[in-house]
Amino acid sequence: MTNIFESITHPTLILDEKKARRNLESISNKIENQNILFRPHFKTHQSAKIGSWFLERGIRPITVSSVEMATYFARHGWNDILIAFPVNLREIDAIASLAKTTSLSLLVEDLETIEQLNNHLVEEVELRVKVDVGARRSGVDWNQPQKIIQIVDRINSSPRLKFGGLLTHAGHSYRAHGVNEVVALYAQTLERMQSVQLALLENGVENVRISVGDTPTTSLVQNLGDIDEIRPGNFLFYDMQQFKIGSCSLEQIAVCVTCPIVAIHKDRDEIVVYGGAIHFSKDYYARSDGSNGYGLAVGSASQNWDCNNIIGEVKSLSQEHGVIKCLPGKAELQKTGDLLCILPAHSCLTVQAMRTYTTLDGQIIQTLNSDC
Amino acid sequence: MTNIFESITHPTLILDEKKARRNLESISNKIENQNILFRPHFKTHQSAKIGSWFLERGIRPITVSSVEMATYFARHGWNDILIAFPVNLREIDAIASLAKTTSLSLLVEDLETIEQLNNHLVEEVELRVKVDVGARRSGVDWNQPQKIIQIVDRINSSPRLKFGGLLTHAGHSYRAHGVNEVVALYAQTLERMQSVQLALLENGVENVRISVGDTPTTSLVQNLGDIDEIRPGNFLFYDMQQFKIGSCSLEQIAVCVTCPIVAIHKDRDEIVVYGGAIHFSKDYYARSDGSNGYGLAVGSASQNWDCNNIIGEVKSLSQEHGVIKCLPGKAELQKTGDLLCILPAHSCLTVQAMRTYTTLDGQIIQTLNSDC
Repeated sequence: MTNIFESITHPTLILDEKKARRNLESISNKIENQNILFRPHFKTHQSAKIGSWFLERGIRPITVSSVEMATYFARHGWNDILIAFPVNLREIDAIASLAKTTSLSLLVEDLETIEQLNNHLVEEVELRVKVDVGARRSGVDWNQPQKIIQIVDRINSSPRLKFGGLLTHAGHSYRAHGVNEVVALYAQTLERMQSVQLALLENGVENVRISVGDTPTTSLVQNLGDIDEIRPGNFLFYDMQQFKIGSCSLEQIAVCVTCPIVAIHKDRDEIVVYGGAIHFSKDYYARSDGSNGYGLAVGSASQNWDCNNIIGEVKSLSQEHGVIKCLPGKAELQKTGDLLCILPAHSCLTVQAMRTYTTLDGQIIQTLNSDC
Repeated sequence: MTNIFESITHPTLILDEKKARRNLESISNKIENQNILFRPHFKTHQSAKIGSWFLERGIRPITVSSVEMATYFARHGWNDILIAFPVNLREIDAIASLAKTTSLSLLVEDLETIEQLNNHLVEEVELRVKVDVGARRSGVDWNQPQKIIQIVDRINSSPRLKFGGLLTHAGHSYRAHGVNEVVALYAQTLERMQSVQLALLENGVENVRISVGDTPTTSLVQNLGDIDEIRPGNFLFYDMQQFKIGSCSLEQIAVCVTCPIVAIHKDRDEIVVYGGAIHFSKDYYARSDGSNGYGLAVGSASQNWDCNNIIGEVKSLSQEHGVIKCLPGKAELQKTGDLLCILPAHSCLTVQAMRTYTTLDGQIIQTLNSDC
């Protein structure tokens, strides 16, 4: 087996396929055992090749976050796609064209958009109503059931549009810490979604499906309760944000960026690596002292990175530089030209920035962003 | 003239070529009038086409931040290139190959790297010693002149290596506010660089060149003093970070990302746009209330964006969503499917993320990252 680290010259996104497949197995077993539909979010990996690992497990419905991503996966044979992003009316032609070959599900939250979809679409499309259970990003407030009822009625009055249930993303779970907070937040999410479901039932709309989904919930909540569908994505790779929430162990994180060391400042226990905002994005997590952390630097063993050899944490990123605050004594053990392996703050954005994966056995895996 | 905004369907990086050319003219005149060598940083635009605007003004020496970027611009005919990033020894073969056709200047800050360069390079290469005047990222501390003298002596003892002077990047100027702070910081930078220059002179090293460079300094300091070279990059487009420092007016910002509106929440004066971390990066500036700002949303006029019609500020970004906190009364004037123009927090990272520009007359301009 080749040592891929030897030939690396610049920041490279390394994927441990075994870890990712184990994460997939564990999460999909958990969901399927509870008779919930698993509709994984493919915005994390954005790769047709990695998508095939899901297919091998018989998983066919998927979630994406843009029309572009839906088009990419439809081209690779996926035909049951939820675009979990409010409909962008400027892409209505691309949506209409996609709906010809793909069973498409879209998110709506206002009457005007439904009107436009009704006027422009030819094929039947399923609409989910996006409910805001507290994340305050998009969706109709769960506390305004009358508004939701009005939207559902409008959908049901159109022959082209099909009401596909209620959907939420409890994005505020990313600010939770530990299993208790995540479990409590999930209980609140369920309660709020079910109150909307009940309001619809009282207005004669029966069998309303509920779709939820985020990685902290899926990882930490044992019994997912009375829901119909769940849509996590990040669990495939996890990252330092998820580790800090408590969703995963360090060992479960399945991607890292290997970065050449370009400068060492022993006097202040710092190392500068070639690896910056253009490789990691600039997303962060809170370090134990409250400052921003941009990644965890560990050493490399012969065939993999080594979570037992923590070197330090990335304390700042500029365009191409990363500065690592090292554990005492660690900086002086390194030399320029060596590599450090950095577990990213947010794997979805790091994958987006890096565009291709290199597996531990040296395979290159393309994504939507490198398939040009 | 076509209205490019009409045909836009998804987040698009718009470049106002006239504004960028005016920024270039103003900064290059200022530098040349003071008999300082202008070596602009091309990491901001990363485009051969935009590079040609500099060539039209007779500017030939350039700065880049990676071997990859140096290779790209060398391929497009640039042959006097400073790689303003600590030497990455893992790319020594690419550096050696580039040095055959290009006058190359590299940054060093330790003896080990110089040793390796001496052993592996064939062509003559110029080395600049990186001095840390307070940014605490990379470079030898200005307060350790003995270390710098040792490094310069080692360079001068090699027949292949040529000492090219002292270089600093006062990156801490990006945390300054207003002309007074920037001017004071620059005076301190000059003083520190000159103290190192003097220490070298006392050790027999004469005519040591000083290279400085950052956009706040170049924009705000009238008399740049006794330096030899300056290397700003961001000034070409500016951005909200520079506006907040005081380096530019809103009208000077030469790029924006136009984003479709996908949801409107009038009750809380918020708009959700298609335009997120994958388009802007996640860099930010401090809003007037101290919270993070990720961009300024303005309306579009028929042929351009309109800085006189401020809609609000981007208060959060997720992978594809941007949430805009609107000025009172502004949210209810918008509708889904309309466009907002967002002046980015940090144009360099936004250009990197977006990869191609669309000019106001509809031309597409490629960058290093889209030339595939």
